[in-house]
Amino acid sequence: MTSHDTPAAPTFGVHSEVGRLRKVLVCAPGLAHRRLTPTNADDLLFDDVMWVENAQRDHADFVIKLQQRGVEVVELHDLLAQTMAIPEARTWLLDRKITANEVGLGLIDGTRAFLETLEPRQLAEYLIGGLATADLPDEFRSGYVALVRESTGVREYLMPPLPNTLYTRDTTCWLYGGVTLNPLYWPARHDETLLMKAVYRFHPDFTGATVWWGDPELDWGQATFEGGDIMPVGNGVVLMGMSERTSRQAITQVASALFENGAAEQVIVAGMPKLRAAMHLDTVFTFADRDIVTLYPKIMDAVHSFTLRPGDKASGVEITDEGSRAFVDVVAKSLRLPELRVIETGGDVYASERQQWDSGNNAVALEPGVVFTYDRNTQTNTLLRKAGVEVITIVGAELGRGRGGGHCMTCPLVRDAVDF
Amino acid sequence: MTSHDTPAAPTFGVHSEVGRLRKVLVCAPGLAHRRLTPTNADDLLFDDVMWVENAQRDHADFVIKLQQRGVEVVELHDLLAQTMAIPEARTWLLDRKITANEVGLGLIDGTRAFLETLEPRQLAEYLIGGLATADLPDEFRSGYVALVRESTGVREYLMPPLPNTLYTRDTTCWLYGGVTLNPLYWPARHDETLLMKAVYRFHPDFTGATVWWGDPELDWGQATFEGGDIMPVGNGVVLMGMSERTSRQAITQVASALFENGAAEQVIVAGMPKLRAAMHLDTVFTFADRDIVTLYPKIMDAVHSFTLRPGDKASGVEITDEGSRAFVDVVAKSLRLPELRVIETGGDVYASERQQWDSGNNAVALEPGVVFTYDRNTQTNTLLRKAGVEVITIVGAELGRGRGGGHCMTCPLVRDAVDF
Amino acid sequence: MTSHDTPAAPTFGVHSEVGRLRKVLVCAPGLAHRRLTPTNADDLLFDDVMWVENAQRDHADFVIKLQQRGVEVVELHDLLAQTMAIPEARTWLLDRKITANEVGLGLIDGTRAFLETLEPRQLAEYLIGGLATADLPDEFRSGYVALVRESTGVREYLMPPLPNTLYTRDTTCWLYGGVTLNPLYWPARHDETLLMKAVYRFHPDFTGATVWWGDPELDWGQATFEGGDIMPVGNGVVLMGMSERTSRQAITQVASALFENGAAEQVIVAGMPKLRAAMHLDTVFTFADRDIVTLYPKIMDAVHSFTLRPGDKASGVEITDEGSRAFVDVVAKSLRLPELRVIETGGDVYASERQQWDSGNNAVALEPGVVFTYDRNTQTNTLLRKAGVEVITIVGAELGRGRGGGHCMTCPLVRDAVDF
Amino acid sequence: MTSHDTPAAPTFGVHSEVGRLRKVLVCAPGLAHRRLTPTNADDLLFDDVMWVENAQRDHADFVIKLQQRGVEVVELHDLLAQTMAIPEARTWLLDRKITANEVGLGLIDGTRAFLETLEPRQLAEYLIGGLATADLPDEFRSGYVALVRESTGVREYLMPPLPNTLYTRDTTCWLYGGVTLNPLYWPARHDETLLMKAVYRFHPDFTGATVWWGDPELDWGQATFEGGDIMPVGNGVVLMGMSERTSRQAITQVASALFENGAAEQVIVAGMPKLRAAMHLDTVFTFADRDIVTLYPKIMDAVHSFTLRPGDKASGVEITDEGSRAFVDVVAKSLRLPELRVIETGGDVYASERQQWDSGNNAVALEPGVVFTYDRNTQTNTLLRKAGVEVITIVGAELGRGRGGGHCMTCPLVRDAVDF
Repeated sequence: MTSHDTPAAPTFGVHSEVGRLRKVLVCAPGLAHRRLTPTNADDLLFDDVMWVENAQRDHADFVIKLQQRGVEVVELHDLLAQTMAIPEARTWLLDRKITANEVGLGLIDGTRAFLETLEPRQLAEYLIGGLATADLPDEFRSGYVALVRESTGVREYLMPPLPNTLYTRDTTCWLYGGVTLNPLYWPARHDETLLMKAVYRFHPDFTGATVWWGDPELDWGQATFEGGDIMPVGNGVVLMGMSERTSRQAITQVASALFENGAAEQVIVAGMPKLRAAMHLDTVFTFADRDIVTLYPKIMDAVHSFTLRPGDKASGVEITDEGSRAFVDVVAKSLRLPELRVIETGGDVYASERQQWDSGNNAVALEPGVVFTYDRNTQTNTLLRKAGVEVITIVGAELGRGRGGGHCMTCPLVRDAVDF
Repeated sequence: MTSHDTPAAPTFGVHSEVGRLRKVLVCAPGLAHRRLTPTNADDLLFDDVMWVENAQRDHADFVIKLQQRGVEVVELHDLLAQTMAIPEARTWLLDRKITANEVGLGLIDGTRAFLETLEPRQLAEYLIGGLATADLPDEFRSGYVALVRESTGVREYLMPPLPNTLYTRDTTCWLYGGVTLNPLYWPARHDETLLMKAVYRFHPDFTGATVWWGDPELDWGQATFEGGDIMPVGNGVVLMGMSERTSRQAITQVASALFENGAAEQVIVAGMPKLRAAMHLDTVFTFADRDIVTLYPKIMDAVHSFTLRPGDKASGVEITDEGSRAFVDVVAKSLRLPELRVIETGGDVYASERQQWDSGNNAVALEPGVVFTYDRNTQTNTLLRKAGVEVITIVGAELGRGRGGGHCMTCPLVRDAVDF
Repeated sequence: MTSHDTPAAPTFGVHSEVGRLRKVLVCAPGLAHRRLTPTNADDLLFDDVMWVENAQRDHADFVIKLQQRGVEVVELHDLLAQTMAIPEARTWLLDRKITANEVGLGLIDGTRAFLETLEPRQLAEYLIGGLATADLPDEFRSGYVALVRESTGVREYLMPPLPNTLYTRDTTCWLYGGVTLNPLYWPARHDETLLMKAVYRFHPDFTGATVWWGDPELDWGQATFEGGDIMPVGNGVVLMGMSERTSRQAITQVASALFENGAAEQVIVAGMPKLRAAMHLDTVFTFADRDIVTLYPKIMDAVHSFTLRPGDKASGVEITDEGSRAFVDVVAKSLRLPELRVIETGGDVYASERQQWDSGNNAVALEPGVVFTYDRNTQTNTLLRKAGVEVITIVGAELGRGRGGGHCMTCPLVRDAVDF
Repeated sequence: MTSHDTPAAPTFGVHSEVGRLRKVLVCAPGLAHRRLTPTNADDLLFDDVMWVENAQRDHADFVIKLQQRGVEVVELHDLLAQTMAIPEARTWLLDRKITANEVGLGLIDGTRAFLETLEPRQLAEYLIGGLATADLPDEFRSGYVALVRESTGVREYLMPPLPNTLYTRDTTCWLYGGVTLNPLYWPARHDETLLMKAVYRFHPDFTGATVWWGDPELDWGQATFEGGDIMPVGNGVVLMGMSERTSRQAITQVASALFENGAAEQVIVAGMPKLRAAMHLDTVFTFADRDIVTLYPKIMDAVHSFTLRPGDKASGVEITDEGSRAFVDVVAKSLRLPELRVIETGGDVYASERQQWDSGNNAVALEPGVVFTYDRNTQTNTLLRKAGVEVITIVGAELGRGRGGGHCMTCPLVRDAVDF
């Protein structure tokens, strides 16, 4: 990946939710998850601690299965290490991470000096895994280390751990031929996007990529946007869940940018209830085939839909309130399908609530009719199989504890279109 | 206040915690508190809803008592209305409030057009009280209003309500001859500082004020700073509580700025436990006289102190870990006092916990030995009186529900020094 | 009250919700509320601590207003003190309170001995207010006191405080000519009913009272019943809210007991959502006149109604599912009224949610068309007045902090019927 | 287990924490865990839902490993099915479960009639797993089923699910030659003890067992007692954690009963902080060998110890406050050991907090120096092994989600003494 004659970026692009997946970005569990404890898990947005070694094993198995099916898998630690091997990139990123606002005065020089001694791979580990004062060798410490120790939360770190990098889906989204660099809802995730910007800006495979919207160096206020809510389903349509984490302020801006660039013709907004169980659209609704979706009816039945289309207005966007029309019907029509075949979360009332929680509806497609899901959602998996979908399972016992499945853990970089 | 030949700002300055209070900034309860409900109170950082009319009555009574004692009282709605009467100021502020990131695309033109129709006073009401879609007259509405209605939290507003403006102490701090424009911890309070910047930049009484640190137009990352933690006690000393809301990243920067400008010689940091009851230093520790403090021992006994002084280092700051030395002793020594006389929260174990909660230690001094406190903390008030302190009470039944007392509700603009 | 020739109990009886109120039981705030702290308030079911002296003043004012309108007011501390003056009653109650299961081995003798030294009034104070180890004089202490100190919650008391006695409505209910001794939902309130049983069994004014159902000396399992959910509206009808605190297991048993005794002909069950804001039916629905109710529509619209009538079945009760019929219509029909006039919680969406929370719908009637409510719910009070209801206000700043109003704070002992 | 000429009970007895384990009671995961959802998990005391099939597989593996080491394993569903095959036992238990207080009037006859149609095994399934209205065939339903559906929480069941039966340790404890039938802290667990009483009273293997204390048919007030806090360590000593769930009121009564029967000579009380992480003593402290314990220092360092011994007092118990003496030293002395070898939770500050949470200290011994623990606590397991302890691992991914390990999941029935 170090010697490319021509930039590969122009070939990046995600043209559907279920077309052939050719290249994908993932991030293996690691140091950041070793920092999780029952006390800080909430602040770091995890429901429970995980057994990191087993999470790593299960994640590696997921990667192998993707590769065996012909998908090129890019891993974030690798990508960031390659990026950090470029002196200009290292300087750019450390200039933005090792500042008075983040590390604190009196600790900048020591922290920077220590990080400069590291190999690119080690540096990438700390950038994703966080840097605790205990990691700083004696020769780089100052009297300010005691001040850090009396601080709490992420401020007790010199660089905060980023365990949610595991969910590469959220941080950046390829929407057809370009990408968004997302302002994430929780401050605890902000730096994920900064790392990705370093990659996009300096890594030779990515230079030249078209950025539709977003920049982690700017303040986006109420405009927050997370990939788990976003689906470029094809036919010029993008679905966007309007949730706690993805706001109308961001949705309308991204829609406007897509329309302006001729990258999409329609954005369908799913106005979602604000619930932990439904934090992203893809936790309750994903595609398994060209015309098959798996969804959790208890929440999807309460969705209120809007359609955004290019308009003459100053904003460049026209809005239609879909009123009482069912979301699946609005989506089907936009794809020129007579209807979507719906596979609900399986089992009785207890099992179905439990399986939604365990990412039962969070399928990611390899190609039309072939998806990855967690092994534990046996009843939903059975329903998918009965509908003719090939289901490849991955072990969810540890990976699922941050409430994300295969869809959340993958950021497609290259995916084919499908015909409608 | 409209016709000044010479700018008044140079005379602003706060030189102690207990010297003669000459001019103070407060903010009356109003529309923002009418938006509080049991459902949204948590998001807006209030423990309970309040009876707004009575809160207004009790706040007015506080203001009258301040005025009767010769203090000039400036009220934020008034100040902002006067500022909004200046066309340039109005444009500056609305350019920053009515943006795609805050109001959302498709709503900018209508919202701005409506706000432009308003008298300065009405505009100030909405800037502080928030603008709901229901407030927007029909002629200014678009199809996007429905999108807002399906949103939740502060995103359901066109401009968010700012009920914590009641606590003017936090937003900006006069430290000796200059002021800080504070980046507040909770995003829900961010815009308070923007309003204050408009005032400081455009209001004739304030132009020319020296700003030590802070700017609401920049992103400060982990560096957050709230006035409830900050006390310019005199003798070149500033106390700073390091709490959930005021971080080491901010404290060290402000210390550095003060030292660089020769504005202070010593910053004493109180490393506080992260508890709702102790959210700011001034909720557990305030001055009642030159050498008298009232404090809540259960929390103050657990404080770990550091002293910052001007240094040669790159950061310009030198740090001393005070180890096991009691905070009150460190403070006494810095003021060249043999000791501080300590008045603990009164009553038995139940009453003292209750009175701390009810802002019993949150006294604000009018002059040495004369303080304002809430009426309900009768036992602590009695102890203060027995120590010779004159205690003027204000009604706390409603005002106290956001967990702030007289100290929190006042931002001193001019206060004399005291001798040590 | 000490020398009655004939038992007064036969005259007790509550025959409506709005008929002339002749005699009522209340309980003044006191020692139990002095035990409330921010830490234990949740366990003791209070949302916030209160200023006890002012709560006492406001409660006394409520009592005076009741008396001035000709209502005989009985206060629980008084009643219990009178009861404790009867040696047999004192023995009966202390035998049940001072046991190994409650006080703990090694502390029974000392605690009992100390309590035996007390005057009846003092004893009543501790029975309601709780007994802390700190209250026990040295001569009554044993080595076990240290064990208590290491315990937490109500177990750190020798007798737990009972601050919810303030809400006398819940503990016992007069339903037409007899009373229920209610098993309350939270263990923290269990002993309230035991105190009331002592009163009913031994106090000369109450001996001979007919008990329909309930006995605090028995275990009622899932059958819990609280007076805030129960309304004997007249015409042989009783309304019962089925809530978190009042269960179907209790409702059906009480209905059966009433039918068996010919005391009622119909029970209308309001199936309520499980929400803190709607903990009892009377927090969202009360009567203001013969045919006027005040209610909070957001919750009452979601009520599902059932009617219970005497039946041949083994259970003696027949059930009708009222399906989609509105609760107010079911009630109106049962009272042979063409309809109920409904006064909703006043103000805009914010104010109405806030007023419901502040007990705005928790009116208690003095006679048809005359009610007591809290002063703070000005908008709902205005709507009631416009409908011709006379509204007498009481100060709610402190009393309302346990989320209860005039209806909750009164247990009618004698109330006339009204004609329908 | 079906044909015994002589009752086996007299041979039951647990004489140490680490002596040869000969017979043990466990309970397999099943229907009760299929009822767990993200919504009700809290009420049912589970932190997360589990994959029941895998939990069953991992539990079966645990049982096989116990059996392969020569332990006789008794399973609760089996035991209860055998008991329910005895007509007298079935009548006794259903008379206590199918009552107006639990099932509700109008549902007793149908529910009882349905249960009477079941085979013993099926009946046992529902007794442990709970009975939902959906389980009741049409011919047994009445109009009251609709009333149940409008209820919430455990009241929406005809018999509540008992998922915490998985932790057989808590419900009953063999302490040397007799057993306690424990009043459990949470009402949600109350019926577990009733099931065990049916077993002890009617199952031929258990008749004649000596009961030291406890009876689920009586109300024990504040006296609650859970086996996870209780350890009969040998030498006439019993350790008892005084926690949220095990109260001083129960501890002193059990101590008194043991002393009176000459069953023990000393009870050492560990006064524990009230934290979810430390809900029982065995979540932070267990024995791995005659003189080896594994413990979590962060919590055990804060324990305050007391010793109870037989006394002349009325209570029969004498108390000694051990003041600042370390709990492990008090225990060592009571066992005549020079000291206990302590193996702390392994790993750095993050790992050790995580492993305690994942039941890392919750070992159960097969014999001196041989323990079962969860596989995931690799660092603590390594430390145990380095100390010469044989560690047999069981899979904890699902079983651990209720916060209990091998110690919690086993109720030893026969365990040998060890020499001290």
